[in-house]
Amino acid sequence: MSRFALTIEFNGGPFMGLQRQAHGPSVQQSLEEAAQAITGEEVTLHSAGRTDSGVHALAMRSHMDIAKPFEPFRLMEALNAKLRPDPISVIACEVKPDDWHARFSCIGRSYEYRIHNRRAPLTFDRGLAWQIARPLDAEAMHRAAQSLTGFHDFTTFRSAHCQAASPEKTLDRLDVRREGEWVIVEAAARSFLHHQVRSMVGCLALVGQGQWEEEQMGRALEACDRQALGLNAPPDGLYFVKAVYPEEV
Amino acid sequence: MSRFALTIEFNGGPFMGLQRQAHGPSVQQSLEEAAQAITGEEVTLHSAGRTDSGVHALAMRSHMDIAKPFEPFRLMEALNAKLRPDPISVIACEVKPDDWHARFSCIGRSYEYRIHNRRAPLTFDRGLAWQIARPLDAEAMHRAAQSLTGFHDFTTFRSAHCQAASPEKTLDRLDVRREGEWVIVEAAARSFLHHQVRSMVGCLALVGQGQWEEEQMGRALEACDRQALGLNAPPDGLYFVKAVYPEEV
Repeated sequence: MSRFALTIEFNGGPFMGLQRQAHGPSVQQSLEEAAQAITGEEVTLHSAGRTDSGVHALAMRSHMDIAKPFEPFRLMEALNAKLRPDPISVIACEVKPDDWHARFSCIGRSYEYRIHNRRAPLTFDRGLAWQIARPLDAEAMHRAAQSLTGFHDFTTFRSAHCQAASPEKTLDRLDVRREGEWVIVEAAARSFLHHQVRSMVGCLALVGQGQWEEEQMGRALEACDRQALGLNAPPDGLYFVKAVYPEEV
Repeated sequence: MSRFALTIEFNGGPFMGLQRQAHGPSVQQSLEEAAQAITGEEVTLHSAGRTDSGVHALAMRSHMDIAKPFEPFRLMEALNAKLRPDPISVIACEVKPDDWHARFSCIGRSYEYRIHNRRAPLTFDRGLAWQIARPLDAEAMHRAAQSLTGFHDFTTFRSAHCQAASPEKTLDRLDVRREGEWVIVEAAARSFLHHQVRSMVGCLALVGQGQWEEEQMGRALEACDRQALGLNAPPDGLYFVKAVYPEEV
């Protein structure tokens, strides 16, 4: 039995999320079925993050155990061939020790949120970005974001369906920058609550449009109340970009 | 009657091309129908370029004459509202003198061709790039491209259906550069023959993969024979990026 670590890119548009769902297609189901077709084995995929319906990944980290011997490059090629036409691509594959776990060994996760800030409707980036027509003040958004970094109770920014034992998390980084017509939000933490990034981005967008004062962000956090949330950003603009493991730091 | 100059972005995937076609949807048809719905007038769209089925535009320049008075920004907003859900977006609109013509006043055109050079299948850029799995030598491609710049008979790089009076054109620029996993080709000329950019890129890709020596590019040009063409690149990676007008230089 070998433990294969996969790096996976996917367009979340057609999926109900990364995790298997009873009511629709998932990235996990596609990958497990591809692996089963190749190996004839029952294969389970474990991943660093659990992305929602419509959320994308540039480099999700996952693993699966396979008994049949495989050269990692060949396994990656075979998986990619079987995954067609799903918009899922295995972009790296390597063998890891048996005690390495894509989810439990992971000590850091990063997301990127892409806002296309223009009036004209999106053409190439439909489903791949959040379009906001009103001009955003990215610098004000960045300043407001700083009140969320550090150790806090993030109840305000947590979905009612969140299964985490505690709402307390340490947010390592929340940076906002403008790149032409784009406003990019980068978030890094050991782990996130359900909907945390989208909830934070939704409120930052209110600050960027001048509907919230910068100070409102800190007050919303302190309220520890989901009712204090201004807006939950749509999944379209959210990308899982990085998982950190101790041996790779 | 006012002449409105439009700058248009479109994803060419669902269209048979920019120009009206008897056998399928076109960007021109969508825009003319949108304008007619708004104005109640028969409107004809004239454009700087004629892109093929599946070819995209970041900034096509077009014009239409409309009798009903319109503030340009309001016309743009109304067109964009009517164009939904087509992946066509009017990103700028202004009034031009009656003798300004999107096609005949245009003195320069630029295209960009995007190659995603990696083994893993595309996820986000399906239909928006040409995927080439084998590693490309972008520097060799750039050197080979230089034999095509200047005034030449481009018969080798011209579609059998090309309607231009002469196969002689001046190619101002053909640059190839690598950006990570991407190889980008930029082409600029006063005008191009039908399929000229795709034909040049197809042959450059053969050079990049080592299937053609760099010198083969010049020999193919000199042959003045469509049979000397190595490969016509697919439309997916081609973008019309700029039209130049004398008063804007």
